[in-house]
Amino acid sequence: MKAVILLSGGLDSSTVLYLAKSEGYSCHALSFDYQQRHRRELEAARTIATSVGVAAHQVVNFDLTLWGGSALTDDRVDLPEHRDLAAMSASIPVTYVPARNTIFLSFALAYAEAISASRVYIGVNALDYSGYPDCRPDYIDAMRSVFRLGTKQGREGDPIEIITPLIDLKKTEIIQLGDRLGVPWAQTWSCYSGESVPCGICDSCRLRLAAFEELGMVDPGMGNG
Amino acid sequence: MKAVILLSGGLDSSTVLYLAKSEGYSCHALSFDYQQRHRRELEAARTIATSVGVAAHQVVNFDLTLWGGSALTDDRVDLPEHRDLAAMSASIPVTYVPARNTIFLSFALAYAEAISASRVYIGVNALDYSGYPDCRPDYIDAMRSVFRLGTKQGREGDPIEIITPLIDLKKTEIIQLGDRLGVPWAQTWSCYSGESVPCGICDSCRLRLAAFEELGMVDPGMGNG
Repeated sequence: MKAVILLSGGLDSSTVLYLAKSEGYSCHALSFDYQQRHRRELEAARTIATSVGVAAHQVVNFDLTLWGGSALTDDRVDLPEHRDLAAMSASIPVTYVPARNTIFLSFALAYAEAISASRVYIGVNALDYSGYPDCRPDYIDAMRSVFRLGTKQGREGDPIEIITPLIDLKKTEIIQLGDRLGVPWAQTWSCYSGESVPCGICDSCRLRLAAFEELGMVDPGMGNG
Repeated sequence: MKAVILLSGGLDSSTVLYLAKSEGYSCHALSFDYQQRHRRELEAARTIATSVGVAAHQVVNFDLTLWGGSALTDDRVDLPEHRDLAAMSASIPVTYVPARNTIFLSFALAYAEAISASRVYIGVNALDYSGYPDCRPDYIDAMRSVFRLGTKQGREGDPIEIITPLIDLKKTEIIQLGDRLGVPWAQTWSCYSGESVPCGICDSCRLRLAAFEELGMVDPGMGNG
């Protein structure tokens, strides 16, 4: 049984990869170099893929700075800093990258069909950071229709499934799940900036730090370079 | 009014670009170098984009030979030759590229949202070559839901539309439409192989030749290098 797992190298996608592995799938990890602000997360993805023991890890390159439209693909747009969780959820943030998950899922679909995989795993989460439109359940359901109708495999009655194990979990619950699965947190990378250590003040760091703190844990990934 | 037009440089997408232009849109053409068998069609796309006078023409690069799965992305798979139209429509051909239109439309969606365009034009056709699952109306409808739910613009009540002007037309009707719009057929490229002149025997050439012949026309693109 083969599965394609979208892997950014962050906390969520690393947990999903470990989960897919624990469910017995031959894991084909898929990452993207889209000229995002830094390559640090791709290094994390490679490390995590090796740690879990994937069957393959593909990295697709393309350039989303061609048109920008996000703080992650246009250096002229500043990253938000020091925001609390309520502020993050209030509106769609400038770190939203137009159609990013749609692009990622499209490549995952192509890869899955080419290798006859039965599932695509994605670590979207609708609770934290609910501002992102392409993390919500109704969007995922629309992509499920695309997976069913837009492929040979789907038309022949054997559609590739989209699995979203984290969609209803709180960040603290994701950490508890990852802990049980043995995810090496110190190897993951969530920070939006690409310094040698995580900044601690971008939305992604703050969300992660708050969750570890709520659990009374120290985030092993925060001190690492 | 801005529109993104998916442009391969072939007969169909060139007609769609000329149509969008005639409808008064500021045309942003989008092409892909996905390591397909040849670059000849990209040259055609550039020529056609210049001819019509686009506002911009972006070419996104990525590599679908990473996993192959099609005669167009794996040199070890032979192109079908000398097939009649009935044989072409009987089943999904080996030139089907897994999830290609889904990938193309995803990038078009990203581009459109980044530049605040209101429409994406795609030259899919459900009659000829009906074997391709990602050219059919129900698939396009699924992508419309994705466009509506997966973007900020869509969530805010102003979804980017997918326009498929050719979906119900016969190839002969597409040629008649393009003729009225002044599409320079000699500059377009449909052949799957990348020789200096079109091969005349691949599915794509045969479909095109048959339509011109039915109209009692000589295809001005067949002799050109």
